[in-house]
Amino acid sequence: MTRAAIESGNRAFIAAFLRGDARAVADLYTEDAQVIPPGGEVTSGRPAIATFWRTVMDAGVDDLTLDTTEVESAGDLACEVGAVRVVGKNGQVTAGRYVVVWKRQNGHWKLHRDIWNSAQ
Amino acid sequence: MTRAAIESGNRAFIAAFLRGDARAVADLYTEDAQVIPPGGEVTSGRPAIATFWRTVMDAGVDDLTLDTTEVESAGDLACEVGAVRVVGKNGQVTAGRYVVVWKRQNGHWKLHRDIWNSAQ
Repeated sequence: MTRAAIESGNRAFIAAFLRGDARAVADLYTEDAQVIPPGGEVTSGRPAIATFWRTVMDAGVDDLTLDTTEVESAGDLACEVGAVRVVGKNGQVTAGRYVVVWKRQNGHWKLHRDIWNSAQ
Repeated sequence: MTRAAIESGNRAFIAAFLRGDARAVADLYTEDAQVIPPGGEVTSGRPAIATFWRTVMDAGVDDLTLDTTEVESAGDLACEVGAVRVVGKNGQVTAGRYVVVWKRQNGHWKLHRDIWNSAQ
């Protein structure tokens, strides 16, 4: 059930991202979430996270895929491991692996810590 | 208390790493742990994890620091966010950020998922 909620959260993330709605993406995170991107500073809180994803959108993304490999959870904390695939406007494909720590708040699972890197 | 156990685990990690004992490092992980290094394949299980850290040791590391920024836990699952700093034999300093998912097994907290990246 936790895994289904997280996969649903990822579908919402992708839909919001692909329609260019950075604020809706940020709303999927907790208030005090952190995004830890390779090659960039740690980004904390929804406004900064919206700005971060806006910048990624502006760089031009044609497609985004999130494949959940596993979810382990206890109480209101869950750890997701997965694979991410980004297709740029130029057709270039970037693949990475991520760990997202999710927190359940008021019955809703939210991204809380989000870190990824690339195998290349 | 969970944080203290994790910080103690990190001290054991650093001690084993700096004395070149890759097997002792690997023993700090769960049996089915994964290490997800930037620029490398996902490494699963203690034997492969020992080999991975042996390769890092052989590359020449003068010092290793792990600074825990925060720990959030529920039941037997904990999420640690921190900063890592590696000083190579040549004096070059590499800094990164990591997320480690820890699992408590038979009363002992073990690294279960280990991912990091660099701000540069």
